Amino acid sequence: MRTVNVGLIGLGTVGSGVAEIFARHATDFRRRAGVDIVITRFADRDPARALALGVPADRFTSDAADVIGDPDVDVIVELIGGTGVARDVVLDSLRAGKSVVTANKALMASHGQEVMETAETHGVDILFEASVGGGIPIIGPLKHSLVSNEVQSVLGIVNGTTNYMLTRMAEDGLDYDTALAEAQAKGFAEADPTADVDGLDAAAKIAILASIAFNSRVVFSQVPVEGIRAITPEDISYAEEMGYTIKLIAIARRVNGSIDVRVHPTMIRADHPLAKVNGVYNAIYVVGDSVGETMFFGEGAGSLPAASAVVGDIIEVARHIGRGCLGLVGCTCNEDLPVRDIGELTTEYYVRLLVSDEPGVLARVAGIFGDNGVSLGSVIQKRTDESGAAEIVWVTHRAAEHDVQAALASIRAMDAVQAVGSVIRVEDL
Amino acid sequence: MRTVNVGLIGLGTVGSGVAEIFARHATDFRRRAGVDIVITRFADRDPARALALGVPADRFTSDAADVIGDPDVDVIVELIGGTGVARDVVLDSLRAGKSVVTANKALMASHGQEVMETAETHGVDILFEASVGGGIPIIGPLKHSLVSNEVQSVLGIVNGTTNYMLTRMAEDGLDYDTALAEAQAKGFAEADPTADVDGLDAAAKIAILASIAFNSRVVFSQVPVEGIRAITPEDISYAEEMGYTIKLIAIARRVNGSIDVRVHPTMIRADHPLAKVNGVYNAIYVVGDSVGETMFFGEGAGSLPAASAVVGDIIEVARHIGRGCLGLVGCTCNEDLPVRDIGELTTEYYVRLLVSDEPGVLARVAGIFGDNGVSLGSVIQKRTDESGAAEIVWVTHRAAEHDVQAALASIRAMDAVQAVGSVIRVEDL
Repeated sequence: MRTVNVGLIGLGTVGSGVAEIFARHATDFRRRAGVDIVITRFADRDPARALALGVPADRFTSDAADVIGDPDVDVIVELIGGTGVARDVVLDSLRAGKSVVTANKALMASHGQEVMETAETHGVDILFEASVGGGIPIIGPLKHSLVSNEVQSVLGIVNGTTNYMLTRMAEDGLDYDTALAEAQAKGFAEADPTADVDGLDAAAKIAILASIAFNSRVVFSQVPVEGIRAITPEDISYAEEMGYTIKLIAIARRVNGSIDVRVHPTMIRADHPLAKVNGVYNAIYVVGDSVGETMFFGEGAGSLPAASAVVGDIIEVARHIGRGCLGLVGCTCNEDLPVRDIGELTTEYYVRLLVSDEPGVLARVAGIFGDNGVSLGSVIQKRTDESGAAEIVWVTHRAAEHDVQAALASIRAMDAVQAVGSVIRVEDL
Repeated sequence: MRTVNVGLIGLGTVGSGVAEIFARHATDFRRRAGVDIVITRFADRDPARALALGVPADRFTSDAADVIGDPDVDVIVELIGGTGVARDVVLDSLRAGKSVVTANKALMASHGQEVMETAETHGVDILFEASVGGGIPIIGPLKHSLVSNEVQSVLGIVNGTTNYMLTRMAEDGLDYDTALAEAQAKGFAEADPTADVDGLDAAAKIAILASIAFNSRVVFSQVPVEGIRAITPEDISYAEEMGYTIKLIAIARRVNGSIDVRVHPTMIRADHPLAKVNGVYNAIYVVGDSVGETMFFGEGAGSLPAASAVVGDIIEVARHIGRGCLGLVGCTCNEDLPVRDIGELTTEYYVRLLVSDEPGVLARVAGIFGDNGVSLGSVIQKRTDESGAAEIVWVTHRAAEHDVQAALASIRAMDAVQAVGSVIRVEDL
């Protein structure tokens, strides 16, 4: 039996999960994959991490190049993250003829083409199931069983941190800062939460999903993104009153030969299944022309769930090495659908404004919406505080994004308008 | 570019869906799979079906052997169903060195070992994603991404017909016969509904899922099964009152080195996500030691959803042919966990009895449960009709199946007991 040697680069959260799964199940993998799989080399900048995992000193190095250069290593597992060192590690590994397994969404969302073409040139595998949805199998199903479909849409909740925060805000009335502090205390959010709360993590993931689902190339920088920093407990309770739940939704839809892709807080009907996906869980809907509506649900983050997907990919590579069929399923980006301008979106908009409580302000604001072709539903709330500021909440009728943004620009410029509090798209998913 | 020729045997519901998907997307598959895939031969006993699909006369035969014997055909798609002719078609095809794609749950659940060993001997693929969950990718994820896990349980709603009927009974108060007639009128149930309503279809599917999830061999005949014929509107409304929903649940769990596998109507908490899976939809939960809880949802039946999975498998085989790596992932049944006797199950039981309204009957029935070690919760209902028959409804405390069945045998033998109306397991999934 052939032994497949793995070099594990990056011993953080996911890397330690991978080591743990191998410690538990290596003999099972041998039987199931028909090949022996051994992690022979471990690399991390921080030797303390290797010590904590009980890695034998002679298998550890603080220099990733040692692992990539080791002629006995067949597969490199890149768990550093980001697009700096990690990109070099991945490209150098592929060029050295080694297959790569990665959980790196930032890399695949921004440099996916370069990475996949390099893998193809060198006849090796690049697998990245863990880059989206943690342990949830979603990239595999899109590339295999669902490949028979023309996918209409792929959308859902793909960031566990913000979903945890929004759940806590909705269920217990926490404000944004308290929810964030709690998520950090529980290890669900980083010290610098930018990537999660600003929607960047979700944008990278939907770029990857859209690329695969639509057989086109969608990169991170093409995804319009809004995070959850502006969401207040007031928005959440207004949403509830109207029968909606606020979720950070990543959306990619095929619309008239283009791809409508975006990430933003969204009001969805409270009885929609996604409204009930709470805490750190992720759920991804895929609608195909033959399969209809499918959904994939599970833990979207965490050491072991993500490691589950990484190890699944390692076993897949090992099978391919065992049978000499590396590069079996390469890039499926054989179409070239353009990304649609978000200005062309039409949907309903929840708008919360803070204005001076003067006569005629409401009518003037309504007039600006009207001048821009945005038709308003009734005012949901008009509340005045002691300081003389009034809060007005509307939901528009179905309107075009560029019209709504033009109206908001004029409204922001009004002296009587203190702030545009929140603008949240209301969608019938 | 290599052309992969497909022989399609069985032009019924799923077969016509396969033909339709090829008509729509054959050129897409060429680009995505890197191989040209063409259905060159069609077979069915009934030439009218081929005519209806517009199959050219020179590509049609009413004799499956013509297709299997055609040296130009690389892949046989078996969509006849059942374990008679279909078994011969599948085995003969594999022995002729042709890979097989099938949606045949009965065959895989009863003769899976024979079929998979034959495929292995002849170095070809046998793929059967469509045999469980219609178009939902579930077998692929279990054999690939989730293979890194020790699976703890796989369970859910895997029969769309009975789920449709139970949904109609719960939502609109239909009785069993009316719900069945409606399902038949809508094409969700066969003229002979036995396989669905008696749980046999679900039992075959859970046997397949359990075999893959636990890397062991579980066959159809080992699955204890109860269908939904005995479920009445009364049972459904009692369940509702107690905060439960009745679903036909297929369960397979790893319990102390054995497999607890069964199919039966089950009362689950009304707030469990499975309670909200309605109509013809299926949902399958997989819990693994690393990935945690995952769920796969979609349409469990129907022409195009099932055909979506069949065509996904055809593309997979075509990729393997193109790269010369057929037989890449064969049988993963490398463990040998025994199936646990259902008598060892412990859970709560809902019991509805029809008794003569005589003094002391309730106490005597309760005494029998007690003598058998079954502790009862309070009586939920005691209702007497004009004829002097009384209906008693209990939910037991957690009890062992063999004790409950022993008690019920004694209770059935009582003169005062007219019928044991329903016995439904109440489970905390």
